[in-house]
Amino acid sequence: MIEVAAAKAATLVEALPYIRRFAGKVVVVKYGGNALAGTTEHDALRLFAEDIVLMRLVGLRPVVVHGGGPQISALMDRVGKVPEFRDGLRVTDAETVDLVRMVMIGQVNPQLVAAINVHGSYAVGVSGEDAGMIRATPRDAGLGYVGDVDAIDPSLLLGLLEREFVPVVAGIGVDTEGHPYNINADTVAGAVAEALGAEKLVYLTDIEGLRRDVADPASLIRQIHVDDLDAMLTDGRIAGGMIPKVASCVHALRHGVHSAHVLDGRIAHVLLLEIFTDAGIGTMILGGPR
Amino acid sequence: MIEVAAAKAATLVEALPYIRRFAGKVVVVKYGGNALAGTTEHDALRLFAEDIVLMRLVGLRPVVVHGGGPQISALMDRVGKVPEFRDGLRVTDAETVDLVRMVMIGQVNPQLVAAINVHGSYAVGVSGEDAGMIRATPRDAGLGYVGDVDAIDPSLLLGLLEREFVPVVAGIGVDTEGHPYNINADTVAGAVAEALGAEKLVYLTDIEGLRRDVADPASLIRQIHVDDLDAMLTDGRIAGGMIPKVASCVHALRHGVHSAHVLDGRIAHVLLLEIFTDAGIGTMILGGPR
Amino acid sequence: MIEVAAAKAATLVEALPYIRRFAGKVVVVKYGGNALAGTTEHDALRLFAEDIVLMRLVGLRPVVVHGGGPQISALMDRVGKVPEFRDGLRVTDAETVDLVRMVMIGQVNPQLVAAINVHGSYAVGVSGEDAGMIRATPRDAGLGYVGDVDAIDPSLLLGLLEREFVPVVAGIGVDTEGHPYNINADTVAGAVAEALGAEKLVYLTDIEGLRRDVADPASLIRQIHVDDLDAMLTDGRIAGGMIPKVASCVHALRHGVHSAHVLDGRIAHVLLLEIFTDAGIGTMILGGPR
Amino acid sequence: MIEVAAAKAATLVEALPYIRRFAGKVVVVKYGGNALAGTTEHDALRLFAEDIVLMRLVGLRPVVVHGGGPQISALMDRVGKVPEFRDGLRVTDAETVDLVRMVMIGQVNPQLVAAINVHGSYAVGVSGEDAGMIRATPRDAGLGYVGDVDAIDPSLLLGLLEREFVPVVAGIGVDTEGHPYNINADTVAGAVAEALGAEKLVYLTDIEGLRRDVADPASLIRQIHVDDLDAMLTDGRIAGGMIPKVASCVHALRHGVHSAHVLDGRIAHVLLLEIFTDAGIGTMILGGPR
Amino acid sequence: MIEVAAAKAATLVEALPYIRRFAGKVVVVKYGGNALAGTTEHDALRLFAEDIVLMRLVGLRPVVVHGGGPQISALMDRVGKVPEFRDGLRVTDAETVDLVRMVMIGQVNPQLVAAINVHGSYAVGVSGEDAGMIRATPRDAGLGYVGDVDAIDPSLLLGLLEREFVPVVAGIGVDTEGHPYNINADTVAGAVAEALGAEKLVYLTDIEGLRRDVADPASLIRQIHVDDLDAMLTDGRIAGGMIPKVASCVHALRHGVHSAHVLDGRIAHVLLLEIFTDAGIGTMILGGPR
Amino acid sequence: MIEVAAAKAATLVEALPYIRRFAGKVVVVKYGGNALAGTTEHDALRLFAEDIVLMRLVGLRPVVVHGGGPQISALMDRVGKVPEFRDGLRVTDAETVDLVRMVMIGQVNPQLVAAINVHGSYAVGVSGEDAGMIRATPRDAGLGYVGDVDAIDPSLLLGLLEREFVPVVAGIGVDTEGHPYNINADTVAGAVAEALGAEKLVYLTDIEGLRRDVADPASLIRQIHVDDLDAMLTDGRIAGGMIPKVASCVHALRHGVHSAHVLDGRIAHVLLLEIFTDAGIGTMILGGPR
Repeated sequence: MIEVAAAKAATLVEALPYIRRFAGKVVVVKYGGNALAGTTEHDALRLFAEDIVLMRLVGLRPVVVHGGGPQISALMDRVGKVPEFRDGLRVTDAETVDLVRMVMIGQVNPQLVAAINVHGSYAVGVSGEDAGMIRATPRDAGLGYVGDVDAIDPSLLLGLLEREFVPVVAGIGVDTEGHPYNINADTVAGAVAEALGAEKLVYLTDIEGLRRDVADPASLIRQIHVDDLDAMLTDGRIAGGMIPKVASCVHALRHGVHSAHVLDGRIAHVLLLEIFTDAGIGTMILGGPR
Repeated sequence: MIEVAAAKAATLVEALPYIRRFAGKVVVVKYGGNALAGTTEHDALRLFAEDIVLMRLVGLRPVVVHGGGPQISALMDRVGKVPEFRDGLRVTDAETVDLVRMVMIGQVNPQLVAAINVHGSYAVGVSGEDAGMIRATPRDAGLGYVGDVDAIDPSLLLGLLEREFVPVVAGIGVDTEGHPYNINADTVAGAVAEALGAEKLVYLTDIEGLRRDVADPASLIRQIHVDDLDAMLTDGRIAGGMIPKVASCVHALRHGVHSAHVLDGRIAHVLLLEIFTDAGIGTMILGGPR
Repeated sequence: MIEVAAAKAATLVEALPYIRRFAGKVVVVKYGGNALAGTTEHDALRLFAEDIVLMRLVGLRPVVVHGGGPQISALMDRVGKVPEFRDGLRVTDAETVDLVRMVMIGQVNPQLVAAINVHGSYAVGVSGEDAGMIRATPRDAGLGYVGDVDAIDPSLLLGLLEREFVPVVAGIGVDTEGHPYNINADTVAGAVAEALGAEKLVYLTDIEGLRRDVADPASLIRQIHVDDLDAMLTDGRIAGGMIPKVASCVHALRHGVHSAHVLDGRIAHVLLLEIFTDAGIGTMILGGPR
Repeated sequence: MIEVAAAKAATLVEALPYIRRFAGKVVVVKYGGNALAGTTEHDALRLFAEDIVLMRLVGLRPVVVHGGGPQISALMDRVGKVPEFRDGLRVTDAETVDLVRMVMIGQVNPQLVAAINVHGSYAVGVSGEDAGMIRATPRDAGLGYVGDVDAIDPSLLLGLLEREFVPVVAGIGVDTEGHPYNINADTVAGAVAEALGAEKLVYLTDIEGLRRDVADPASLIRQIHVDDLDAMLTDGRIAGGMIPKVASCVHALRHGVHSAHVLDGRIAHVLLLEIFTDAGIGTMILGGPR
Repeated sequence: MIEVAAAKAATLVEALPYIRRFAGKVVVVKYGGNALAGTTEHDALRLFAEDIVLMRLVGLRPVVVHGGGPQISALMDRVGKVPEFRDGLRVTDAETVDLVRMVMIGQVNPQLVAAINVHGSYAVGVSGEDAGMIRATPRDAGLGYVGDVDAIDPSLLLGLLEREFVPVVAGIGVDTEGHPYNINADTVAGAVAEALGAEKLVYLTDIEGLRRDVADPASLIRQIHVDDLDAMLTDGRIAGGMIPKVASCVHALRHGVHSAHVLDGRIAHVLLLEIFTDAGIGTMILGGPR
Repeated sequence: MIEVAAAKAATLVEALPYIRRFAGKVVVVKYGGNALAGTTEHDALRLFAEDIVLMRLVGLRPVVVHGGGPQISALMDRVGKVPEFRDGLRVTDAETVDLVRMVMIGQVNPQLVAAINVHGSYAVGVSGEDAGMIRATPRDAGLGYVGDVDAIDPSLLLGLLEREFVPVVAGIGVDTEGHPYNINADTVAGAVAEALGAEKLVYLTDIEGLRRDVADPASLIRQIHVDDLDAMLTDGRIAGGMIPKVASCVHALRHGVHSAHVLDGRIAHVLLLEIFTDAGIGTMILGGPR
């Protein structure tokens, strides 16, 4: 009993320097719903929400960014629309972008908001259309309403953070005529982190971390400088779905974000462990001078 | 040419006392999408958005509240789910409330936000789940996730109004365990107006106004005191879809809202005409001492 | 009736982009009492006050600057003092400057204040002596207390604007020993606009606008760049009472003021028409890069 | 030399408890121009201005109120208008009130402002017309534009005091239609003191103080409670020009002002001596419980 | 390793509701130096400082109050002064109170400040003499400068808390003539908690907690209502050094403090365990309705 | 009687320009306890406190810095510890620095605080350990805990000044591990003046002022430029205890402090006379361009 108490006290004291270092700092977390610990999706959401609320309560300013890939496909399937992909990107006509918007803003976003708000009135859902926050440009005429981030106006987010809310951001942008665009959520997370001058940019994934050799589990990278990661990207050693993650985090680290993290969302409370304990978890990518 | 200029100047000067009287005042507008002027829905939205932006620019603080009835039925139809109604209320099981949420938060809300934001970064979409704003209680066990408003926490809306944003509110509430509820948008509009101490509560409808005798167009009511309207409600002279509108506006007028208006949304810019000109339009319901 | 409503709505919507563009912007209006629309002076004041109040109510920050030439001559005449002019400037001995001050601060200024305040507690009269606002230097020893603007301390005006008052400024300056000076009101208007970083500087006159050829009504200038106007000044194509107006507006446009306007005050509500409608009225002079 | 220094130090130390007690307190001073020390009017103004500036610099918040009786008569004489008095009050037709306004706002007020501002940008002249500050009602139909104070809106004065300006108030009021009224300056001083919750209300006069027996110099009152003074007023022991002074000071002391003072303005720096030294000067009238 | 991580995460999550509940709340901690865990005094200080800094970092507002009994005796011994006690209270002549002040303000206080500030610029030492914070009255003429708390002026503490400093308060008071008084630190802690409307008042002692029967370790009280504790005090069941602790905590709980705690300072990090974990430690005394 | 009044008024008016010039300015006063006017130490403190309070009341922001040399020796003597000096500096082992801290923070500092606070709740005692304000580095390994100022963090002082407190600073610093250091108070005064951008830095001494020739009273320096004083320091014309005073004041004048003063503390109220009268007292050292 005394030993348990001592261990608890030790954990709290271990957290002290991290709480001090990160007080008031913005941490942008890219939430990948299919990659989280928990026996059910509801359970995974619950654990994730606890981490976000704890970060907020000890004085950090978390911002959640999410996409909605699997849920979009599910809805398209349900309404009998066949998805079409080109180079891994969903061809998004006007009807499809409406479905994307329904899922991202009307399904995934409020689920995250609700899970966090079980603990109090913290989370506020926003999309890039609100207050013209994310200005999008089309990526490729043939892809329809698939966009890139042209500019971020952080004033809505800053206003919410100042009032101590936790913004939950759906990765939808808008062009100058008011058309919505689907934007890769990893890209949005990086751009938001950059616009807010975030301390950390965290990707929750279903892998242990980045590897020097994708095929070799023993080549897991604990820590790497952004220049070296950029070299790996150029060399083609980063592949598939990791490309937008890595590209946007390289960009963010070169524009003021202090560090980025690729974490294994399958570990319960991995966010807390990374931020508040001495445990080295996943891959940490450092910006700044080498 | 001089005459045209004189007429324009006269209209602007006519607006002067109204702009002065309503400066800084909150006006809650219940938007009924199927009831607006315009040759197409897009056109209707465009005209409505101009009115809201003009109100905001001359110093009022408009808040838009919307529902999504027809669009919900359309999506249910599309996914092959047969709506069931009891006493005019949609039976809303867990699956249905997810669809309701998708439509309200993910379709109707961003359409309104986008239409307004063509003019600048004004509108921000919110739902009652954000920051725990609308606390709901179930109306009837048999109806599932159909709720009544238990309490409104106006702090998120006040924060947005203070920063001069235009909140666009989807009528979704949340219970203490985080389940979403569908709430009649007329009811939400009244409750929001009350919580914000609004000056005006405006219902845009597809009728000319309230009538003393529903069957007689000549019995259109220009102005009525809330007590008399309440008597009509008690007498059963208010029927069908008008009941929640009238009931919630009676409640709001008895709790601090100054006046309520039932306007004919089929007249272009009816909001501007009601607020900024001497024209008497639709039905005005007055609170306060008789 | 519906047509009238439609026309009114159209006028209000026409004003929308102007209200948006000028929100929070300072507009300095040089009031020339003898040049305004209205069948009587009282009527002219009434129309002018309506324009100023409307500008203030929709979010602009108007500042009025006035002189008092005719009224000064009237008072001198009444007390039996013969005015003496040199090169069109009134020789102003100590006794005369006291009379000037009485008329400007004690007669014209409170008349303007009173006309505006019929609509509410908006206007506050100030002179350049208040809070040492306008520091004057003598123009010419032979002219006595006729001054040029040496420096403007805008802090009193900024304080009044911040509290949403409408400053009404009498064109009197003060030297370091506390002597008052009469300063040309056109010059004061330009200097005040410059010190406040005004968006617009408007001269209300009794002419239709500037002409390329003074003798030719058809040569009315609709729009001109400040460089071209300066060239006209240098060439001697600007004459008489227009010289201080044009000189001070050239200076102001070269020091941060965005545009200047010479308007025909004989048109009722000309200020409103210029600012809130698409009508091109009078002469607009543009600063900035050509 | 050491003795002089010691005396100086003693005077400064003597002032210490008074500076502490009055820090941040409002002191309303009724300036009577014809009653001040100084070999010339200019000299009198200079001494008075030094006192006001010193009060302001050590942390008090002085407000000056003035009338203009002799100067009004002088101007009327100059323009050949014969003053008419009834019961000691000037009959004030529309033409006369314009002259009154010219003198009060355009002559006396800026002279005071200029004298104070020789020391820095402290004074700002205002009249009761500015920001609708003094609402007047006519005293008597037969007297024309002679008014009583109906209400004071202190917001303009509070705004100026907050920015550490010294307001100089001309005793002109305004009715709801915008007509100016001449109001007795003693009355205005009392009403302003009351509206600002002043600590002190000071009348500078040309008498040594109040006397129990007007004819007996030995009956000078050093200190008196407001109730006793009120009794003297009721008994008819206060006469002539002292009546409005005494009546308004009784009213002010019964509505929150702490003390009133009738001082002999012929003593140089009498304000400083009263406020910052132990010398008992003139008559002090105390409010509060006896 | 995974288990360790899971245990750490569990401890952090366990702290979540406590951090939320106590965010922004004031916790007054009476530090008893001779009662703390740690193999040396320096070690005890280090552990205590970690707890205070962690409380501050997660959003609580800790205030430390201390005495200095043993150190005072040590200094008196060193300078060859024999302490004299009456009824357990030190007779404190002018020379002794100077020594008390030296120890409390010049020795114990800076040691606490220094220990906390190893972690950052958090702690600021104050005594009741600073800003006249603790007004003292003599307890008994025969005891000399031994005082009771007459009044607390919390403005200095509130100012420090607002700037997020951690005040460290030495239990010295001052009378109206500027003489210092020694005041029991338990009493000061209660009075400070009351003046600040503290959430918690914590006494760190060298006992396990309060007992119903002092002689029976099994009678340890886990939780008790203030009324029952007051009854024990009246019955004489509280003895010796516990009397001022219990009396001042009864007073504080009856004047707005929410709960008081008697903790065993010999347990490492007992403050953290009490505040942030579910462990029931020491005795908790509850105020409010039973 | 009238003459006395006139002399008092003259003294107050003489102070006017100084009060105006120094309004809001920081004045750092190095208090040398053994050098003040007064028949007893208590009397000297009383006179000094009056000067500080008067400065504060008329709008200056005084900061007091003190050492404690004689009192330290007295305590060491009392506890039987023999002081050891090297090159005039006290060798300060761990035990000695504890005694130094007790005297400076626990004896001299609260005496000053108490003397000032007889007039109101003005003074707050601080040391360089509070909020990590003075970061010290050891001067010389052989001297132990004798330090130099490494850096000043003025935020605590600025916070106190903003709330209109008078900080009283004990010259103790702290290193990064939390050890206290004794620092020469003249040096601390200069560093604090520099960190606060003080207007004046005043040394109260027991000499009349600086002399060009130490042996010749007739060579008293009334005014000198910092460059010339620096030359005297380099030439060896400054000796003994004056060296740290002169060195730190040269440094402060070269880093933003406007003037420094060496005053004769044996003259009663010498601070007031220097600051608020035309008397030239002691030596004034000017910074800025020559």
